[in-house]
Amino acid sequence: MATEARPTNIGIVAADCYFPKQYVSQTALESFDLGPTGKGKYTIGLGQEAMAFCSDREDIYSMSMTAVQQLLERYNIDPKQIGRLEVGTETVIDKSKSVKTVLMSLFEKSGNYNIEGIDSINACYGGTAALFNSMNWVESSNWDGRYALVVCGDIAVYAPGAARPTGGAGVVAMLIGPNAPLVIEPGVRGTHMEHAWDFYKPNLESEYPVVDGKLSINLYLKAIDSCYKTYKQAFERRNPGKTFTLDQADYVLMHSPFTKMVNKAYARVLYNDFLANGAQGKFAKVDPSLAKLTPEESYSSKDVATVFADISKPEYPAKVEPSLTLPKQLGNSYTASLYTSLLSLVANKKDELLNKRLLMFSYGSGLAATMFSIKVQSSVENIARVINLPDRLASRTAVEPQKFTDVLLHRQQNHSATSYKPSGLTTELFPGTYYLSQIDDLKRRHYERVPLSQ
Amino acid sequence: MATEARPTNIGIVAADCYFPKQYVSQTALESFDLGPTGKGKYTIGLGQEAMAFCSDREDIYSMSMTAVQQLLERYNIDPKQIGRLEVGTETVIDKSKSVKTVLMSLFEKSGNYNIEGIDSINACYGGTAALFNSMNWVESSNWDGRYALVVCGDIAVYAPGAARPTGGAGVVAMLIGPNAPLVIEPGVRGTHMEHAWDFYKPNLESEYPVVDGKLSINLYLKAIDSCYKTYKQAFERRNPGKTFTLDQADYVLMHSPFTKMVNKAYARVLYNDFLANGAQGKFAKVDPSLAKLTPEESYSSKDVATVFADISKPEYPAKVEPSLTLPKQLGNSYTASLYTSLLSLVANKKDELLNKRLLMFSYGSGLAATMFSIKVQSSVENIARVINLPDRLASRTAVEPQKFTDVLLHRQQNHSATSYKPSGLTTELFPGTYYLSQIDDLKRRHYERVPLSQ
Repeated sequence: MATEARPTNIGIVAADCYFPKQYVSQTALESFDLGPTGKGKYTIGLGQEAMAFCSDREDIYSMSMTAVQQLLERYNIDPKQIGRLEVGTETVIDKSKSVKTVLMSLFEKSGNYNIEGIDSINACYGGTAALFNSMNWVESSNWDGRYALVVCGDIAVYAPGAARPTGGAGVVAMLIGPNAPLVIEPGVRGTHMEHAWDFYKPNLESEYPVVDGKLSINLYLKAIDSCYKTYKQAFERRNPGKTFTLDQADYVLMHSPFTKMVNKAYARVLYNDFLANGAQGKFAKVDPSLAKLTPEESYSSKDVATVFADISKPEYPAKVEPSLTLPKQLGNSYTASLYTSLLSLVANKKDELLNKRLLMFSYGSGLAATMFSIKVQSSVENIARVINLPDRLASRTAVEPQKFTDVLLHRQQNHSATSYKPSGLTTELFPGTYYLSQIDDLKRRHYERVPLSQ
Repeated sequence: MATEARPTNIGIVAADCYFPKQYVSQTALESFDLGPTGKGKYTIGLGQEAMAFCSDREDIYSMSMTAVQQLLERYNIDPKQIGRLEVGTETVIDKSKSVKTVLMSLFEKSGNYNIEGIDSINACYGGTAALFNSMNWVESSNWDGRYALVVCGDIAVYAPGAARPTGGAGVVAMLIGPNAPLVIEPGVRGTHMEHAWDFYKPNLESEYPVVDGKLSINLYLKAIDSCYKTYKQAFERRNPGKTFTLDQADYVLMHSPFTKMVNKAYARVLYNDFLANGAQGKFAKVDPSLAKLTPEESYSSKDVATVFADISKPEYPAKVEPSLTLPKQLGNSYTASLYTSLLSLVANKKDELLNKRLLMFSYGSGLAATMFSIKVQSSVENIARVINLPDRLASRTAVEPQKFTDVLLHRQQNHSATSYKPSGLTTELFPGTYYLSQIDDLKRRHYERVPLSQ
């Protein structure tokens, strides 16, 4: 077989995120929704601190425009340096026209129309698919030396009820190229895809999904089992003589529908390590009969959950917590969730991350899941400086639960409107935010931008 | 920069298509819709012969399942040999769950869940995006030696009126790997993407798009100009000393919303050749002032249209017509359209194609477009034998325009139904066709299959 050369050390060269200025506190929301009996339900039960949300001024087009334009500006990237741009989202507001094509409006002035890539869709997995596609492009014979730009993000809203506090909003934009500080380890991946109805959106005029919560949690755990096994095999094939256990991962980042799920998921990986080698020191006190459960039994076993949650306690604060800032503060941003974890970790740890391995788990209902890993090869200080998380989070505005509830009702009532003028105040947006100015009589959407300095 | 080896000669190793058994004749439809004054409107004006359509028994999930299962069976492919499976479509019936995950149900028995790839969305371009993504995967460090499977297809239906005869239906499945008979020429591509509202689907509960026909035709021509220029540059960079003109392409295949558009498009490429070098023999009699029009003037210039249509006449029957069998017989299958052209050409020309170059143009409104080329490196007789087009087209059933109209109305009325039992007769489906048996109270869709031999 003839061969050609391909570049290496491909990964995330730069990144930025966008989240709305407004949020509701989960402490306030649990009290508002449930009264005194609600205390701790959202904050401890779900592990959430706040939830970002949008008025009718924002949609997936505007939020993605904001994220892309900010990344180009903050890293001083010439739009002509972009050779591929693709989007992962499940916030579908048109069945045909991709978010990507709307983003092309930001490149018009540069005259750069030669930009490959469109939208990737499957629940919360679209960002990971877009990332892999962009990396493969850089490795391909069709790469022309320019950067790829991956955009992932969503507006996650649920009908009033138990699932509503698991909403959120956010977009992450990532510049992909060779010689990256955050290198995606090549050839080390475990994927599990399966036909399932755990979470889906068959009511096309509604922003709200149909969810079978228990099934979704079980499938998330099943996907971890399967992906971890395949990831481990691939790792051991690429690193002869080494055995992969969680000890080989310095940090563990996982898709976060709510951060309590990440707790469960981390414990599940430990359970997999136990099944592979129960003689490992940290499993000394585990009842060996837990290895004899069927997978189905183990998903609902209280013993498995408690025992491995306990074993995770000494490791979790160091290996997982530093990546949970944005997932806790924004809520579930669906396709962006895993990448808001990555940005949180970079913001919190900066160059302590040098030479560290980050184990990543991406899950999208339906279902599509992959485990992969990132090796930090060079300084991420510049990324941490640009994303500037502490200041940006501190400059947000807390909104009362009643106003939050009103805003969501207004979104719901106007979601499919024609000839629509949004009423949300543009003063409630960060400087530099693109916003919906009008939906015209042909349902074409029009945008303006809040000035960068006000 | 460190490098690793990658495989070459990547392209289409095997392919199959699925189209519904029922069709309406365009001769009958133009007479039914418009009376005697309609004569030739659809057949000559649009260049269409027949239109495939589905009852409520079929949707994008069922049609894609049929195409994938048939490809695996007819080429005797073990489901474990598939390492990637992805779908391009704009027939969105769920905003979150991908068609890809439904296709995973076909792989359950094999135990193969380790299959990357999800859905790519942008109008008629999704199939091309999926094809490029799969090829890049084969070239990447994450390739594990298995095949990729690309599925593209749509059900194209329009509201009653002038656009309705431009509907259609079909799915193409393509097996991607190295050492392929149909090699996608590496590094030779021209892409044009731009924000436009020429055709889109903002009415999410409806199967019907919003279309600005004139704008869409002009943008298609603009995209050809831009893609042809970039393709030509890339070709000439890769082939020093050679100049690319249409004479370097043995066959020209283009996205066909209706085949008359392909006529216009071919003439447009000739106009580009004229602008690049008016001294070429075939342009001897062209008025040089036609080179001085602005692009906008040229799109609507009757002179440009007529003169280059005339010049195309001696070339068109040999270079284009052999690829139009399925586009004329099925109508617009959106993401599958360009690939139904490819299968038509393979069926009609078989190994006359050896060592020939096929120039391909993919267009999706919104807009995303790419020109690329295929070199036929080895025998395609097996593909021609498997797809067996003449027999399959001959075994279809013609349906009267009134019944066709009734079926489309029934689809329209039940498109968003919950707890729904389709009423379309399963005897009207080809053997081996998957069909919708039920939509349950949670809008989950359930399928069965017509036996292969009846």
